Amino acid sequence: MTKVSDGWLLSELASLVGGRVDGDANLRVYGVATLEDAGPGDLSFLTNPKYRPALASTRAGAILVGPGAGIDGRDLLVAHDPYMALAEILERMHPAPAPSPGISPDARVAPGATLGVDVALGPFAVVGNGARLGDRVVLGAGTVIGDGSEIGADTILAPRVVTYPGTIVGDRCVIHAGVVLGGDGFGFATSAGKHRKVPQLGRVVIEDDVEIGANSTVDRGTLGETRIGRGTKIDNLVMVAHGVVIGPYGLLAAQAGIAGSTRIGSHVTMAGQSGAAGHLRLGDRVVVAAKTAVFNDVPDRAFVAGVPAVDHRAWKRSLALVKMLPELRSRLSSLEERLAQLESGRKGNA
Amino acid sequence: MTKVSDGWLLSELASLVGGRVDGDANLRVYGVATLEDAGPGDLSFLTNPKYRPALASTRAGAILVGPGAGIDGRDLLVAHDPYMALAEILERMHPAPAPSPGISPDARVAPGATLGVDVALGPFAVVGNGARLGDRVVLGAGTVIGDGSEIGADTILAPRVVTYPGTIVGDRCVIHAGVVLGGDGFGFATSAGKHRKVPQLGRVVIEDDVEIGANSTVDRGTLGETRIGRGTKIDNLVMVAHGVVIGPYGLLAAQAGIAGSTRIGSHVTMAGQSGAAGHLRLGDRVVVAAKTAVFNDVPDRAFVAGVPAVDHRAWKRSLALVKMLPELRSRLSSLEERLAQLESGRKGNA
Amino acid sequence: MTKVSDGWLLSELASLVGGRVDGDANLRVYGVATLEDAGPGDLSFLTNPKYRPALASTRAGAILVGPGAGIDGRDLLVAHDPYMALAEILERMHPAPAPSPGISPDARVAPGATLGVDVALGPFAVVGNGARLGDRVVLGAGTVIGDGSEIGADTILAPRVVTYPGTIVGDRCVIHAGVVLGGDGFGFATSAGKHRKVPQLGRVVIEDDVEIGANSTVDRGTLGETRIGRGTKIDNLVMVAHGVVIGPYGLLAAQAGIAGSTRIGSHVTMAGQSGAAGHLRLGDRVVVAAKTAVFNDVPDRAFVAGVPAVDHRAWKRSLALVKMLPELRSRLSSLEERLAQLESGRKGNA
Repeated sequence: MTKVSDGWLLSELASLVGGRVDGDANLRVYGVATLEDAGPGDLSFLTNPKYRPALASTRAGAILVGPGAGIDGRDLLVAHDPYMALAEILERMHPAPAPSPGISPDARVAPGATLGVDVALGPFAVVGNGARLGDRVVLGAGTVIGDGSEIGADTILAPRVVTYPGTIVGDRCVIHAGVVLGGDGFGFATSAGKHRKVPQLGRVVIEDDVEIGANSTVDRGTLGETRIGRGTKIDNLVMVAHGVVIGPYGLLAAQAGIAGSTRIGSHVTMAGQSGAAGHLRLGDRVVVAAKTAVFNDVPDRAFVAGVPAVDHRAWKRSLALVKMLPELRSRLSSLEERLAQLESGRKGNA
Repeated sequence: MTKVSDGWLLSELASLVGGRVDGDANLRVYGVATLEDAGPGDLSFLTNPKYRPALASTRAGAILVGPGAGIDGRDLLVAHDPYMALAEILERMHPAPAPSPGISPDARVAPGATLGVDVALGPFAVVGNGARLGDRVVLGAGTVIGDGSEIGADTILAPRVVTYPGTIVGDRCVIHAGVVLGGDGFGFATSAGKHRKVPQLGRVVIEDDVEIGANSTVDRGTLGETRIGRGTKIDNLVMVAHGVVIGPYGLLAAQAGIAGSTRIGSHVTMAGQSGAAGHLRLGDRVVVAAKTAVFNDVPDRAFVAGVPAVDHRAWKRSLALVKMLPELRSRLSSLEERLAQLESGRKGNA
Repeated sequence: MTKVSDGWLLSELASLVGGRVDGDANLRVYGVATLEDAGPGDLSFLTNPKYRPALASTRAGAILVGPGAGIDGRDLLVAHDPYMALAEILERMHPAPAPSPGISPDARVAPGATLGVDVALGPFAVVGNGARLGDRVVLGAGTVIGDGSEIGADTILAPRVVTYPGTIVGDRCVIHAGVVLGGDGFGFATSAGKHRKVPQLGRVVIEDDVEIGANSTVDRGTLGETRIGRGTKIDNLVMVAHGVVIGPYGLLAAQAGIAGSTRIGSHVTMAGQSGAAGHLRLGDRVVVAAKTAVFNDVPDRAFVAGVPAVDHRAWKRSLALVKMLPELRSRLSSLEERLAQLESGRKGNA
């Protein structure tokens, strides 16, 4: 592939993403920018139809689109899945800088810890006794790895992450700043109005290829595991409680929360600020709309919304009916009047 | 009590929890596990009826249950409150490891700070001027105790906790990683569209035996205190705003939030993702359902739900009625038709 | 102005805030306290009518009120905007202590970083390569400034803040403990059920005079900026996603969340636990009620509530109508009965 300073031919990018050029295949772009910000040297992209009006005024040199975009007079890079193509192109144009391995003299590694090759430890990172870091693991400044925790190869922990003792993190994970893995679950037995802590003896297991956003928290199981399935992506400020099991390839958007012992299938999406109560089962490929509260089990492939969550079509119908209430009420009043007239007429007849 | 390697007789555990054995009192168990995970050497437990179906297939050697569980052919440990008994048994089997006292050479203690006996300070912990740590206080790695803060005896602060200056924490508290105590309240006076900070001069007081979950925040009062009552337990990512007073023995589940100056009685439960507006009073023993928003005062012992919060029975009735709307609408339409017929008939009669 | 030990004349405070004394202008106060806590030497204040009942029993020496408060027999300090006056008086009585400049020997500053004059760096603070700190910047203990980040003059970062590389923070900002600025946006392209990370190459720009509460997170843009306008104040545990632009002088209360690429005008208020979906536009001076979920664009000056958000009057009407449903249902039943009688009577007539 051409050097950055030379830019990229549209044809090169097309072959990278398995797409085709509709226009000048020899056009050269030097970067990627939004329709609004792009200049003549940039590739821009239309991956969300909401931004179609911006096409009219964009100064972009070329535009990455899906098939059948119906755009004339533009040099287009047409890809089957333009958002995926965008990911691939950005990755190629901006390869993640390899962190320079090396252990800061200000990091503290317990004598009983094991470090893989080419690890990078920032200043004031702490690695506990019996902890194991895989090859090329990166610990940001001030990150604390609890005793006996295991971090898989090529996993990156940003600054100020905490893993409590015994936490397991897989390979190629990205854990953002402020995340806390393995804190005690919220388990208390109440007697005579006082709460006694139920010891939280389980652990957290994060499988491979998981990403967890800033300041999210995953609590350890009471006895068993709290487990995040491989390839699941979690946004910021999300709460995963003790004993929750999330299947592979899920998406949990910001500020979602899952209460204790709930089991979530594969490919489940929970949108922003949604929640699920404890001890539930959500099937595979479930979608939970934003702000929804799930209080009951959800079957595979359901799309639920509302508080409490119901099928999203039922939720929409309810909303529509509530909107119609003024009309229903006035129809009711008119019926009452008409009926009263009839009744009085009947008395008159009698 | 018997050594770990020898396990525990069911009879021993029964006397520990004030329960009785229904079956082989001389059976020996070596650990505790969920019904799903338990093997023949484990005690399991049935504390939530949802898991009763798992009884059929569990391999557990014995099962901890409440009175009248009605389970045949199993060795049972029957306790009046099996969840409390579980707490007691786990505590006995897995006593919390005494932290090894000692001050990491990488901790920084201001000359004007006072430390009790047998404190344990992790690497990169910071103790400010005039701060006081009680006996056996534990500070995790990177925890920052602000100037003049006071931490009571036997309190454990996980890694990366921050107390702003002047914060008071009682005895035997557990403060989890990422918690921030004493940040400025969200107080701004707005004039001509610009916001001017109202100085936040109060403090945070956490009474004895409080636990606060990972990444939760408690802001200082503007002038007075923000106070968390003794024995109150707070989950992760909870927000307690400036000037809030929470009575003793409360339970605040994850992502709950309480706005400024609201006063909450004793033994109040706020479920996950619930919230209360500012300047309210919630009485004693109030229960706030998950996802609820409290916008008005709540009397003692009320159980409220919805947005805005109402008595939870009223909330359920509203939900049921909304569900009935399609039926109500069709009854209305049928009435209209029948009335129209009557009316036209009457005209015909006239 | 008089020394603290001498207190302040009511007349002095009146001239400070542009108000007037109604009562003894030579009365001296020595501090400020709530109506409940104030003693004879204190100035108290009535800025929220909810607390008017406390006037009867307050021991305060004088009371700060708005015009037309209608309080007799008390020495009053009358200000046009008493809450703003409170801010001014507290600021005067309790000037923020100037942090003692100086770089802790335990802070780590990369050789390529640039520091302004009189900066104050706490222990274990880390300043990355190419980062620039303006004059008088304060970094709390354990705060991490990523490579190439720029922090404006007089900005205070509490302990344990993280800025990812390339983050820009303006002058006179206050960033509270645990805040994370510049983490990766939640952008993944999904193909065949697997999620591929879209590189997050943009940055975060925090303009001047912004305050951000504890443990809030602001993600970097995918390509462009995530921007918080000047003078905007953000509470704790708030999520601002990638590519969001918030205009000047906004107020975001605790646990609010804004999804990716949404643009928010100036002087917008989002109350606690409210949220906005992605790719929306909220106009200037919009108010979003607590617990609201905005799923559509909102015009200037709208006040919206509900899930999904509608004009707050429409929301209130819907609530009122839902409350009337039991009545509507019984009116419907009674109509049905009366109509049936009429119908049978008619048959009888026929």
